[in-house]
Amino acid sequence: MPDPQILSISDLPTSEAKWVALKKVEFVDQKGTPRSWEIAVRKTTSKSGVDAVAMGNIFVHPSKPPATLLVIQYRPPVGKYTVEWPAGLIDENETPEEAAIREMKEETGYEGRILDSSPAVASDPGLTNATLKLVMMEVRLSGGEAEDIMPEQKLDDGELIERVMVPLSELYERLLGWAARDDFMIAGKLFYFAAGVHFAKNSGYI
Amino acid sequence: MPDPQILSISDLPTSEAKWVALKKVEFVDQKGTPRSWEIAVRKTTSKSGVDAVAMGNIFVHPSKPPATLLVIQYRPPVGKYTVEWPAGLIDENETPEEAAIREMKEETGYEGRILDSSPAVASDPGLTNATLKLVMMEVRLSGGEAEDIMPEQKLDDGELIERVMVPLSELYERLLGWAARDDFMIAGKLFYFAAGVHFAKNSGYI
Repeated sequence: MPDPQILSISDLPTSEAKWVALKKVEFVDQKGTPRSWEIAVRKTTSKSGVDAVAMGNIFVHPSKPPATLLVIQYRPPVGKYTVEWPAGLIDENETPEEAAIREMKEETGYEGRILDSSPAVASDPGLTNATLKLVMMEVRLSGGEAEDIMPEQKLDDGELIERVMVPLSELYERLLGWAARDDFMIAGKLFYFAAGVHFAKNSGYI
Repeated sequence: MPDPQILSISDLPTSEAKWVALKKVEFVDQKGTPRSWEIAVRKTTSKSGVDAVAMGNIFVHPSKPPATLLVIQYRPPVGKYTVEWPAGLIDENETPEEAAIREMKEETGYEGRILDSSPAVASDPGLTNATLKLVMMEVRLSGGEAEDIMPEQKLDDGELIERVMVPLSELYERLLGWAARDDFMIAGKLFYFAAGVHFAKNSGYI
C-alpha cells in the first residue's frame, strides 16, 4: 500500500474542534501570585476519569523466548509511522481494565490476561490533562502450528494497524533501529519502558 | 506554603493562545481514503526540531547506593503536583544535549555528564506533534559533608520545583506511593521507565 499523504495542515478554531480543545487555567501559585497556563484537552474523557489505556504485553510461548507485540500505525500528528504498544481510549462506561481487554483484542486479535494495572499517570503534564493507565497483560501461547498466523483484528473503519512480535531481549535495539528511519517514530512511553529494561540489565547500577 | 488554587478554567480561542494551538490535518490514508485528524501543537519547537528534553539521571556516591533526582512541581494541566525527571523546552538555538545540561543545572543545581541521548520520540502521538529526547546523565558525588545540602537552583520567575533523591532500587515503589495521594500524579514516561526496571528485575522474563 502507498504511504499516507498529508494534504494540508490548517489552524483549527477551538469552536470547530470535535476531539480536542484549548483551555486557559487561571490559578494562584504557592506564593499567592496569580498565573495562567494554556492546556490542550481531550473532549472524550471517560467516566472513569482516565482517558486511555496502553497494553504492555508479554507473549509466553513454550519453546520461544518471551516476546512483546507492538503496533505500527500512521499517526497524523507526527506525520510518521509510530511504534507503540497497543492502546486506546476508554469508552464512556468502561473501566480501564475492561477497555484494555477490549482494545487488546481489537488491535491485536489476542485475548490477554491482566497481570497488573498502573495508577493513572500523566501523558504530558506540561501540555495536557490527558491521563492513561499502563495495563500489563500476558498472552500464553500453546505453541501449535496454527499460531504461526496471527488472529484476525477487529479494527474500526480507517484503522490500519500492523503487528510486530519482538523478543523482549531485543526490544531496545529494535526500537533504536526503527527510530533511525525517517518515516518512523517511537512512542515515548514505550521507549522509556524499553530504556528502563535496558538500563536494569546493562548499567551495572541496579 | 499553601497549595496553588485554580481560579477558573475557560475555553481558549486558538487565536488568543500564545504557547499552544490546534491544527487540523487533512490526509489520504494507505487505502486512498481522505481523512482528517485534530492535533494540539506547541508554538515553541526549537530549530533542532525537537521540543523538549528530559534528564534521566543517576547520582553515583562513593558510599551510598545509586540514586536518581526527581522533581516535584505543580502542573496546572492536571491540577496536581507531578513527580517527573527534570525536563525542559529546548531554546531556539540550542541542541537537545546543550539544553539537557542547562536545564539539569537550572532545575537541580547539579552539573551532569551525558551518558546517552535517545532519538526524538513522540510525547503522545495520537494527540500532539510534541517530541522529546531522553538524555541520560550521570552526576558523581565525592561524598563530602557539603553535599548533604543540595546546590542552589536557578529557577525562572514562577518556577517552584522541589527535589527528591530516591535510591534507584526503590524508584518504582516510591512512585506508587506518591500515586496513591490525591494531590499527586506521576508523569507517565518516568513511570514507564521505572516499570521497565521493575519488570526486568522481577518478572523472571528477561
